[in-house]
Amino acid sequence: MKDLNIGLIGYGFMGRAHSNAYRQVGAFFDLEFQPRLACVCGRNEKAVSAFARQWGYASHTADWREIVGRKDIDLIDICVPNHLHAEIAVAAARAGKMIVCEKPLARNVSEAKDMVAAVEAAAVPNLVSFNYRRVPAVTFAKRLIDEGKLGRIFHYRANFLQDWTISPDVPQGGAATWRLDVKAAGSGVTGDLLAHCIDTALWHNGPITRVNAMTETFIKERVHAETGEKQAVGIDDACTFFCRFANGSLGNFEATRYARGHKALYTFEINGEHASIRWNLHDLHRLEWFDHHDAGRERGWRSIHVTDHDGSQPYMDHWWVPGLQIGYAESFVHQAADFLAAAAKGEPCSPTFREALQTQKVCEAVLASARQGQWVDVPE
Amino acid sequence: MKDLNIGLIGYGFMGRAHSNAYRQVGAFFDLEFQPRLACVCGRNEKAVSAFARQWGYASHTADWREIVGRKDIDLIDICVPNHLHAEIAVAAARAGKMIVCEKPLARNVSEAKDMVAAVEAAAVPNLVSFNYRRVPAVTFAKRLIDEGKLGRIFHYRANFLQDWTISPDVPQGGAATWRLDVKAAGSGVTGDLLAHCIDTALWHNGPITRVNAMTETFIKERVHAETGEKQAVGIDDACTFFCRFANGSLGNFEATRYARGHKALYTFEINGEHASIRWNLHDLHRLEWFDHHDAGRERGWRSIHVTDHDGSQPYMDHWWVPGLQIGYAESFVHQAADFLAAAAKGEPCSPTFREALQTQKVCEAVLASARQGQWVDVPE
Amino acid sequence: MKDLNIGLIGYGFMGRAHSNAYRQVGAFFDLEFQPRLACVCGRNEKAVSAFARQWGYASHTADWREIVGRKDIDLIDICVPNHLHAEIAVAAARAGKMIVCEKPLARNVSEAKDMVAAVEAAAVPNLVSFNYRRVPAVTFAKRLIDEGKLGRIFHYRANFLQDWTISPDVPQGGAATWRLDVKAAGSGVTGDLLAHCIDTALWHNGPITRVNAMTETFIKERVHAETGEKQAVGIDDACTFFCRFANGSLGNFEATRYARGHKALYTFEINGEHASIRWNLHDLHRLEWFDHHDAGRERGWRSIHVTDHDGSQPYMDHWWVPGLQIGYAESFVHQAADFLAAAAKGEPCSPTFREALQTQKVCEAVLASARQGQWVDVPE
Amino acid sequence: MKDLNIGLIGYGFMGRAHSNAYRQVGAFFDLEFQPRLACVCGRNEKAVSAFARQWGYASHTADWREIVGRKDIDLIDICVPNHLHAEIAVAAARAGKMIVCEKPLARNVSEAKDMVAAVEAAAVPNLVSFNYRRVPAVTFAKRLIDEGKLGRIFHYRANFLQDWTISPDVPQGGAATWRLDVKAAGSGVTGDLLAHCIDTALWHNGPITRVNAMTETFIKERVHAETGEKQAVGIDDACTFFCRFANGSLGNFEATRYARGHKALYTFEINGEHASIRWNLHDLHRLEWFDHHDAGRERGWRSIHVTDHDGSQPYMDHWWVPGLQIGYAESFVHQAADFLAAAAKGEPCSPTFREALQTQKVCEAVLASARQGQWVDVPE
Repeated sequence: MKDLNIGLIGYGFMGRAHSNAYRQVGAFFDLEFQPRLACVCGRNEKAVSAFARQWGYASHTADWREIVGRKDIDLIDICVPNHLHAEIAVAAARAGKMIVCEKPLARNVSEAKDMVAAVEAAAVPNLVSFNYRRVPAVTFAKRLIDEGKLGRIFHYRANFLQDWTISPDVPQGGAATWRLDVKAAGSGVTGDLLAHCIDTALWHNGPITRVNAMTETFIKERVHAETGEKQAVGIDDACTFFCRFANGSLGNFEATRYARGHKALYTFEINGEHASIRWNLHDLHRLEWFDHHDAGRERGWRSIHVTDHDGSQPYMDHWWVPGLQIGYAESFVHQAADFLAAAAKGEPCSPTFREALQTQKVCEAVLASARQGQWVDVPE
Repeated sequence: MKDLNIGLIGYGFMGRAHSNAYRQVGAFFDLEFQPRLACVCGRNEKAVSAFARQWGYASHTADWREIVGRKDIDLIDICVPNHLHAEIAVAAARAGKMIVCEKPLARNVSEAKDMVAAVEAAAVPNLVSFNYRRVPAVTFAKRLIDEGKLGRIFHYRANFLQDWTISPDVPQGGAATWRLDVKAAGSGVTGDLLAHCIDTALWHNGPITRVNAMTETFIKERVHAETGEKQAVGIDDACTFFCRFANGSLGNFEATRYARGHKALYTFEINGEHASIRWNLHDLHRLEWFDHHDAGRERGWRSIHVTDHDGSQPYMDHWWVPGLQIGYAESFVHQAADFLAAAAKGEPCSPTFREALQTQKVCEAVLASARQGQWVDVPE
Repeated sequence: MKDLNIGLIGYGFMGRAHSNAYRQVGAFFDLEFQPRLACVCGRNEKAVSAFARQWGYASHTADWREIVGRKDIDLIDICVPNHLHAEIAVAAARAGKMIVCEKPLARNVSEAKDMVAAVEAAAVPNLVSFNYRRVPAVTFAKRLIDEGKLGRIFHYRANFLQDWTISPDVPQGGAATWRLDVKAAGSGVTGDLLAHCIDTALWHNGPITRVNAMTETFIKERVHAETGEKQAVGIDDACTFFCRFANGSLGNFEATRYARGHKALYTFEINGEHASIRWNLHDLHRLEWFDHHDAGRERGWRSIHVTDHDGSQPYMDHWWVPGLQIGYAESFVHQAADFLAAAAKGEPCSPTFREALQTQKVCEAVLASARQGQWVDVPE
Repeated sequence: MKDLNIGLIGYGFMGRAHSNAYRQVGAFFDLEFQPRLACVCGRNEKAVSAFARQWGYASHTADWREIVGRKDIDLIDICVPNHLHAEIAVAAARAGKMIVCEKPLARNVSEAKDMVAAVEAAAVPNLVSFNYRRVPAVTFAKRLIDEGKLGRIFHYRANFLQDWTISPDVPQGGAATWRLDVKAAGSGVTGDLLAHCIDTALWHNGPITRVNAMTETFIKERVHAETGEKQAVGIDDACTFFCRFANGSLGNFEATRYARGHKALYTFEINGEHASIRWNLHDLHRLEWFDHHDAGRERGWRSIHVTDHDGSQPYMDHWWVPGLQIGYAESFVHQAADFLAAAAKGEPCSPTFREALQTQKVCEAVLASARQGQWVDVPE
C-alpha cells in the first residue's frame, strides 16, 4: 500500500463528496494507493481551515498554484466552478499530477481541447467526474447492454428534471448560485444536467451524430448574488433535444430546472429489440428491467433491488448485505476506487478528459442547434 | 341461444353491479343462456320502478315472494342485506330457481347450512358472489399456484383496509349503513371484508384448520339511521387473525374500516418456495410476480399488466387490446359468464353455497376465537 | 326519454368499444336520448351478422350508403379505417345525421377541412372520438388546470409507447394491420398515437404554434396482409417532436411502436409554477399530483385513486364506490353521455370536427417538419 | 474537540457498519468527541489484523478482556453474537466504559436485566443499536406522530420479510450463520427481525400490553457449520403476533425468512384518525404519507423523498442536496452522532439498555405466547 497525497481545489458540495470518497474508499476496496488528504484550497481562510479540520486535511491554502506546485501532492482534484477548470487542469498536468476534474469538463469545446492536450502531453492519469456512471444500477445497465441482452437499440430517452430555480428571487452568481451565471457555468442545464445524461448515453449507446435542440430561459433577469444588480440571465433554464445515434437509434433528451415536484430526477430508458431498461436517480438503488424472453403471460417490468452481495451486481459486494441500499455518495467512492486502481496499473480510467471532450462536443452542438433552430452535426 | 329470465331482489350497489353484468355478458361471452332482466324487487315503489326503467327490467315488485313464485323467472339473484339471505334463498331453492347470492352467504353457519341443504335438496345451480376470484389477476394467481410454480407454500397474507367509518357521526342501520348494524349484517368486517379474503385464500391455498383472532370495536355507540336513537355498536370494526392451513403454511389476515387512506384496499401475498405473488384491489389489473428461477442478478418483482388478448391471461381475450385495463365491474361479468356456462352444462360453478359454507365456518371460528381469546379449530 | 337510433359503420375493436358505450350509457347516466342499436355495417356478411346478433343490433348491411340513407337512423358512428372517414362523414352530414367519428379525424388536413365544412354546413352535432379526454383522471387534470392550481405552465410532456410491431413478420394492410399501411392510415404513430397526445395537450394547455420533429421507419419493408407481396413501409414507426405552445410553455412529445415492454403506455406530465400533474394509461384510474403549497417537509407526489363517489372527481359518481376502479371502456361511455346530453340541448360537444381539425394541423406540421428537417409553424 | 478511543469487539457485518460510522461521523456532524479507532478484537489473528489495517484501527487483540481492561479505551462497541453480549457488557460497565451494544440486547430478559443493572450501577452512557430508528424517514415519522398529526392511533402494522434461509442446505452455527443457532442467537426471527419492529413500535406508539403469537420452524434439521453434524433447528423461522398497545390501538407483526422475493423488507404502517404513514426498508429514503386534511378530491398517498437540506427533515441537512439519497450505512452515522453528542452532555441516548429491555420483554412474551398458544401479558 502506497500513500497518495490528494490536493483538493474547491470545498463546496462537490468538495465534500470527493473528500468523503477518499476517506471511505480504502475501507471498502483493496487498493494499492491509499489516499491521504494532504491539502485543500479555498479563498476564504476561515471557511477553508474549518473544512480542513472537519475533513482531516493536513493543510490548507488560498492559492491553487501553491497546491499544484507542491512536490508531495500526487493528485489534484478540481471542484471549483467551471470557468476555472481549464487553467487549473492545464497547470496540474504540466506539473505531472494525476487529475480528477468535476463535470462538465469545461465551459466549451475550446477549453476542453486545451485540457485534453495538456493531460495527454503530460501523460498523467485523468478523469472527469461523471459519477452517475458508477451508481451500481447504471453500471449494471451498461453490462446488460454490452452482453447483447437488449439486441438492436431503437430508443434512448433521458430526462434531468429539477425545480429549484422557479422563483424569480433566486439570484445568479456567487458561491451558492454560480450555476445560474453564464460566465462561471458556461451554460445552464445543458452543461450541468444534460452533460450527465449525454455522458451516460454515449457510454451506453455509442456516438451521437446529429442533434436538434430547443432551449428557453423562463426568468429573463435575476439579481447578482454579489453585486445585487439585476442582470440579464445568460443561461438556458430548459433544454430539449432529439438526436440520431450512430447505431441507428433515436435519442430524446430534456433537462429543466422548472419541473415542479422533482428535486433531481435524472431518468433514462433504453428500448431494445429484446429488452428494455429504466432507471431514475430518485431511487438509484433499483433498476427496472423488461425481458421479452420471459414467458408471455408472465412478462412485466422487474424492479431489481441492486443490493446483492455475491458479485453479480457491480460494486455491491463491497458494501452490506442484500436488501440494504447505498446512496448517492457511494458513486464517488466507486469512482475513486476505479481511478486509483487504474492509475496503479498505469491504465486509463473512463471517462477520461478525451472521452469527456466528446460530451462537450455534443453539448456545444446542442446549444448551437438551439440558437440556429436547425439540425447540427456533432464533430467526431 | 336461450332466454334466461332474471329476478333481482335488492337494487342497491350490488343490484347495480349484478344488473350490469347480465346486460354486458352476452356481448363479450358466447353463451347458451341469454339473460333477460325480467323483474326487480324492492320495497320503495318509486325507487324500484325508477331502477327498473333505468336498467331495463321488464317489471318490478315490492314482494320478493312474488318474484320467487313466478314460473317464468329462471334465476333469483339475492342482493339484499345479509339477514334476508337465508329465507329468500331457501324459498327460491324450493321453487326450483337457479340462485346467485351476494356474499357473505349468511349471518352465521346455522343459516348457511340451511341454505346449502335447500339448494342441494332442490339440485339447483347456485353460486355465492365472491366476485374478486374473477378479477383476471386473481384468477391468474390461482392458475400459477395450480401449475406448481410456487412450490411449497410458506405464507399467505391478506388485508382488507378501509377508512369510511372513522367518524363517530356515521350512523348504523338503514339502507345505506346496514353493514354497521349487527342484526342486519351478522358481523362487521369479518363477514363483509374478511369473507372475501378467506374465500380467495381457501381457493388459492386450501383448508384453514385453526384460527386465533382479535377484534375491536373502536366506536362503541352510534345513532341508528332510522330511529335516531343512540345504540351500542355490535359489529367488529377491526379483526386480525392468524391461522394454520392444512398444507402447513401460515396465514395472517386483517380487516378494518379504520385504516386512514385506504378506500378498499384488499391485498394478498403468497410466498412459495420458488415464487411469490402479490395483488391489490386498488390496481386490480396488475399482478406482482417474483420468480426465483430468474437469473440471480436480474431477479425482481415483475409488475404484470394483465391485459393480454391472446388467451394466456384469464378472461382478457374477451375484452380489448393489450394495455387497456378493465375495472371492478368486469369481475361480475366473468362470474355471470362462468355461472351461466356451467348451468347450461349442468355443472356446478365455484364458489357454490357448499363452498361458501366453509368460508362461513372460518368466519365463525374467527369471531369465536376473538370472543374466547384462544385458538379455535375450524370444523370440516 | 327519446329513442335515438344508432348506425354503426365498422365493427372492429372500435366498433365494439362504441357499441358497449351505447349499451351501458343509459343505465349509468340520466339522458334524454336513449340510444338504440339500429344497424351495423360491414362488408363481410357472416361476420357482421354475428356481430349484430351478439351486440343486439336490430339490422345489418354491407353498404354504408344504405345506413346513411335510412330515415330512421339518427346518428352515424364511423369506426372504419381512416381513409374512409371523409367520404362517409360528408355523406352523413349531408343526410343530416349526428356524427361520431373515430380518431384521427382524417388522413390529412385537406380531408379534415372537407369534413368540417360538411358538418358545419349541415349544422349537425359532431364529435371526434378522442376518448382519453374522458378518462376521469384526465378530465380531472383539466379541471385542476382551469382552476389555476398549476399557475404558469412551463412544460408539457407526453409519450405514447407501444411494442407490437417490432417483429419484421408483422404484415401491413388488411383488416388487422391497416394501421401499418400508409394508404389506409395516412400516417403511422403520428396519426394513431400522437393525435391522442396532441388532442389532450391542446385541450389542457392551449394552441401549439411551432413544431420540430424527427421520424423513423425502423422496418423498411413488410409483406402486405392481403396480397402477400413485400412492399416499402410508408408509415412512421416512431416520431419525436418538441414544440412551443402559445402560452409560452415547451412541449416534448414522442410516440413509437418499438418501445419493448410497453403495451399502450400513453403518459403525460405537466409542470406548472405551483403544481405538477402526471398520468399514464396503464394505471388510468390514478392521477399523480404534486402541490407546492403543501408544507415543505411533507411535500411529495400524491397518488390519487380517482374513484370517489361524491361528485368531486369527474364522472365517478355514476359508477361504484370509492376504491373500485373503472377501466378503458368507460371513457367511451362518458363520451357517449356527454355527446348525447349536448345534442339534446343543441350544444356542441368537444372535441368537435373543427377542434379535431386543429389536432390534424399539428400532425401535418409534425410530419412536414420531419420531412424537411426544420421548424414548421402550425397554421391557425 | 476531544479524542474518544473506540474498542470494537467483533468485526463482522456489524463491526464494519459501526466502524464506518465512527470514521464518517466527524466529517458530517459537529461533535465535541472525535472518535479514534483504537483497538479491534477478534479471535482469528490473521483476519482481525487485516480488518484493523483496512479500517485504520491502531491495534488489535484476540482477547476482549484486554480491550475492556485498557485504560485508554473510552467506548466499548459490542458486535459479537448475542450469547456474548451480557458478559462483555457487564464487564465493560464495571470498567466504566461507555457502551454501544448491537441488538438485540441479549438472548433473554434475564441476561438483559443483568446488563441494565450493570450500566445503571456504573452510570455509563449506553445504547443499543436499533439503527433503523435513525433512518431519516423513520425519525420523521416519529416527529409527525409526536406533533399529533395522526390523532388517535387505530393500527400499527409491521413486517420484516427475508428469504435467505429457504434452502435446507443453509447450515446453522458458525461465523456466517450463527443467527440460525439458537444457542448463539437466543431465538430466530423474533430476536433478529421482530426486535427491530418492536423497538420502532414502542418508540412510535408506546407500550405493548399483551401479545398473542404463532411461530414456525419450516426446516426442522440443519447441518452445523462447524461440526458438520445434522442437528434439530431450535430457532423460529417465522413468527406472527398481534397485540394491544396501551393507547388502545391494535398491533399486527410478522417476521419470516421464508418470504421469497424479499431481501430485507422491513415495513411499517400506522393508521391514525387524521393521517397514516407507511415506510419500507427497501426504499428507506421515502416516507409515504396520507393526510386526511387534504382537500377530498386531491387526497392521495404522498411519496415524500426525504432528502431536503433545509433542516425540516431529520438529519438530512448534514448530507447532500435535495433529491440525492443516503443509504443504510448513514443510520449508524446518525446513531453515533446522537450518542456522542448525548455523552458529551451527560445525557442518555435512546434506546438505552433500559429501553431495550422493554423490547426484550415483548420478544420473550411473544415466544412464550407461541409456545403456550395463548395471550401473554407483557410485564412493565
